[in-house]
Amino acid sequence: MPVIRVEMYKGRSVDQKRAAAKALTQAFLDTCGGTPQSVQIIFIDVEKEDWAAAGILASDPKPA
Amino acid sequence: MPVIRVEMYKGRSVDQKRAAAKALTQAFLDTCGGTPQSVQIIFIDVEKEDWAAAGILASDPKPA
Amino acid sequence: MPVIRVEMYKGRSVDQKRAAAKALTQAFLDTCGGTPQSVQIIFIDVEKEDWAAAGILASDPKPA
Amino acid sequence: MPVIRVEMYKGRSVDQKRAAAKALTQAFLDTCGGTPQSVQIIFIDVEKEDWAAAGILASDPKPA
Amino acid sequence: MPVIRVEMYKGRSVDQKRAAAKALTQAFLDTCGGTPQSVQIIFIDVEKEDWAAAGILASDPKPA
Amino acid sequence: MPVIRVEMYKGRSVDQKRAAAKALTQAFLDTCGGTPQSVQIIFIDVEKEDWAAAGILASDPKPA
Repeated sequence: MPVIRVEMYKGRSVDQKRAAAKALTQAFLDTCGGTPQSVQIIFIDVEKEDWAAAGILASDPKPA
Repeated sequence: MPVIRVEMYKGRSVDQKRAAAKALTQAFLDTCGGTPQSVQIIFIDVEKEDWAAAGILASDPKPA
Repeated sequence: MPVIRVEMYKGRSVDQKRAAAKALTQAFLDTCGGTPQSVQIIFIDVEKEDWAAAGILASDPKPA
Repeated sequence: MPVIRVEMYKGRSVDQKRAAAKALTQAFLDTCGGTPQSVQIIFIDVEKEDWAAAGILASDPKPA
Repeated sequence: MPVIRVEMYKGRSVDQKRAAAKALTQAFLDTCGGTPQSVQIIFIDVEKEDWAAAGILASDPKPA
Repeated sequence: MPVIRVEMYKGRSVDQKRAAAKALTQAFLDTCGGTPQSVQIIFIDVEKEDWAAAGILASDPKPA
């Protein structure tokens, strides 16, 4: 433990994920303790057409 | 809040997701309250070969 | 399919969940098709101290 | 119920998933009871560049 | 990897979970390979009033 | 977006979660961009008897 799942819009580069994995792991260890080996992170890329807020797909224009 | 995650077979069109996002958001607001802006919905398309019921992949024929 | 998971602040009554289950199921069927029996909904109650936005727990006061 | 979600590295064949679906379903029924029809399994393939342990992407070389 | 999450009705004993953890792990290894140490299983107990099928909470009587 | 879900053993204090929420949010923003308001974090406390590695519940003694 822990398992940290990050759901975000598709589009982050591998370099960004590499940096995020390192920074999120450190952030968890600094505040909650544990060993680095125990921290697992899973990134889930989500298309904007698969994510909605206020009932509107993120790929659609916002109402004026 | 809330975050609503919908796992379903791949194949729904963007139009269906657009309508579903609107209808699911309204259904939540009508019954549980809150503001539209707070409702987030994430659709997860799952291939039939990645979903099993009764131990049989949905992509496989059902036993007679 | 589908499996619909609803993560929300703890505090909704069973009556609200009963109504939400009915309304969310209908919303899915109306827009994405399928049979009622195939729609499963799981509600996950989350304490406000377990949910953060902008780095601040929902149980904490918002900064002025 | 139950819903069993299996997140794993991408690369398992459909034959492996077919066998896993059967074996996992049986393992659940043997130990927790229930009917086969009630057991749903969802496989989620995760790219190695989307999974990190100890802050390092699984697609990257391990430090010496 | 893998991470296997099992959502089920509350009520299984620790003994059942102990047996299920062992059997599910073996089922995965037998069919998908990997090392025992890499298999993580998380059980999530769900109250029947938090799980609905066909729009009806599992804690409610089925319609005649 | 993003939604970050942290599954961990039960036992972290609210102070630890408060600090983790802040640190994880900053870690994401520093590496992946976005606005603070868009980052949501959900902590899920898991009992040790609900988490297994290598087929053994975390609440059980490790084999010698």
